[in-house]
Amino acid sequence: MARGRTEKVLTTRFGAGAGRSLDELIVEEPLSIRLDDNLVATTMRTPGHDFELAAGFCFTEGLLAGAPVTTCRYCATGAAVETGFNVVSVETGGRAPVPTPRLGTTTSSCGLCGSASIDELAERLAPLRDAHAFALDALASMPDRVQPRQPLFAATGAVHAAAAFDASAEVVLVREDVGRHNAVDKVVGRLLLDDRLPASTLGLFVSGRASFEIVQKAWAAGFGTIVAVSAPTALAVETARRAGILLAGFVRDGRLNVYAPERLD
Amino acid sequence: MARGRTEKVLTTRFGAGAGRSLDELIVEEPLSIRLDDNLVATTMRTPGHDFELAAGFCFTEGLLAGAPVTTCRYCATGAAVETGFNVVSVETGGRAPVPTPRLGTTTSSCGLCGSASIDELAERLAPLRDAHAFALDALASMPDRVQPRQPLFAATGAVHAAAAFDASAEVVLVREDVGRHNAVDKVVGRLLLDDRLPASTLGLFVSGRASFEIVQKAWAAGFGTIVAVSAPTALAVETARRAGILLAGFVRDGRLNVYAPERLD
Repeated sequence: MARGRTEKVLTTRFGAGAGRSLDELIVEEPLSIRLDDNLVATTMRTPGHDFELAAGFCFTEGLLAGAPVTTCRYCATGAAVETGFNVVSVETGGRAPVPTPRLGTTTSSCGLCGSASIDELAERLAPLRDAHAFALDALASMPDRVQPRQPLFAATGAVHAAAAFDASAEVVLVREDVGRHNAVDKVVGRLLLDDRLPASTLGLFVSGRASFEIVQKAWAAGFGTIVAVSAPTALAVETARRAGILLAGFVRDGRLNVYAPERLD
Repeated sequence: MARGRTEKVLTTRFGAGAGRSLDELIVEEPLSIRLDDNLVATTMRTPGHDFELAAGFCFTEGLLAGAPVTTCRYCATGAAVETGFNVVSVETGGRAPVPTPRLGTTTSSCGLCGSASIDELAERLAPLRDAHAFALDALASMPDRVQPRQPLFAATGAVHAAAAFDASAEVVLVREDVGRHNAVDKVVGRLLLDDRLPASTLGLFVSGRASFEIVQKAWAAGFGTIVAVSAPTALAVETARRAGILLAGFVRDGRLNVYAPERLD
């Protein structure tokens, strides 16, 4: 099943412009992520940058616990060669703790309520300090800066982007994926593999909403600023305030809303 | 942590209309779903219709395996009363099979590639036949019909909707949730609890994209038609064609694209 990141599919148009055509759709394939040969997740993703996704996932979910990644590899051997590119092993030579089975957990949150979920993060992540403070007009410019680097979105209109930008608001890195979280994990994974974490001089841009898990991943990576094109959730705001992250939402047409901190200095 | 479905949060606006205001944000809280007292999932959701979500999830993921749901209840007892409303138990009196631990699976797909994921579904779900055939202009009208019944979207701009509509294109049921899949599970759960499955005379509307998992859930519930406001993924189209589901996407302004079946009769 070696596929590209988009696929042309026959479609019948109804209404204005009716007829038959080939539509370019985003590809979605499962990726199984192993950590030192223990399965830790299977996620639907857009193929490409799989090592970044796998390493970033293990990092942002706290599974590495400080262990350095020595290798990422596809588990494609012998007869499994076709599906092997949907299995990535992140290796630390056994230095990462053996992952605990978490039966039926479809979110990284194991808390029994939102506040407990934040408490759980705060046990392993310190509030961010000394992160770079971006000018609000620089943050407001991010959608326009990232948009030219979203080719899969341009082709399909159905894919999320995440980007890292530096202190001069230059876009350092853009990743696209059918899953919001995956796009962030790919960005974090690239920075991890380049030994550029914590990302205290960088900001994180996401093309959609900012949910709890996006803020969690940004916190783990040390981003002091998150810019979201759409709305944050209430829990995302609470988490960002606790983390010391500046969280801006509804970044459109030169405007934005700052949700965290509660009061700008 | 008894909360509503939205929460007012202080925000600082930058750009046109600058100033301080209270923004209404969508609430996101974890819900742990138990099946006959076995934890099967923890999902971030918008509180409300929790029994529907829990029952719908167990049904669409194939966990009930035909067992009828006898009760849904919150696990709120004693000291746990505050967090107990974030734990729902779906009960079948032990008639559902004991769920298999699926370590680290964050998607319901356990397949090693997209086609294997579809094969896996096809083992337990038959292709749909005799589903109601909707007129395309009726399908094209669905966004306008559902929109007045999306109060959380109107308030927050950050929440997904799913809806069931009947043979005369009347909207029967609308559910909103911070998670796309949850909105669908709530709709399916309501129909299940009302003993209205399979939904062969109904269609399913979703306010966002149609991914593999949305089509999987629709297939499990017996919806012969899916209408999505945004794009499907390539794998969603492949799944719908296999299931015998009519899948329409980009339903906007009286237009739509039909992706499955490949050729309309």
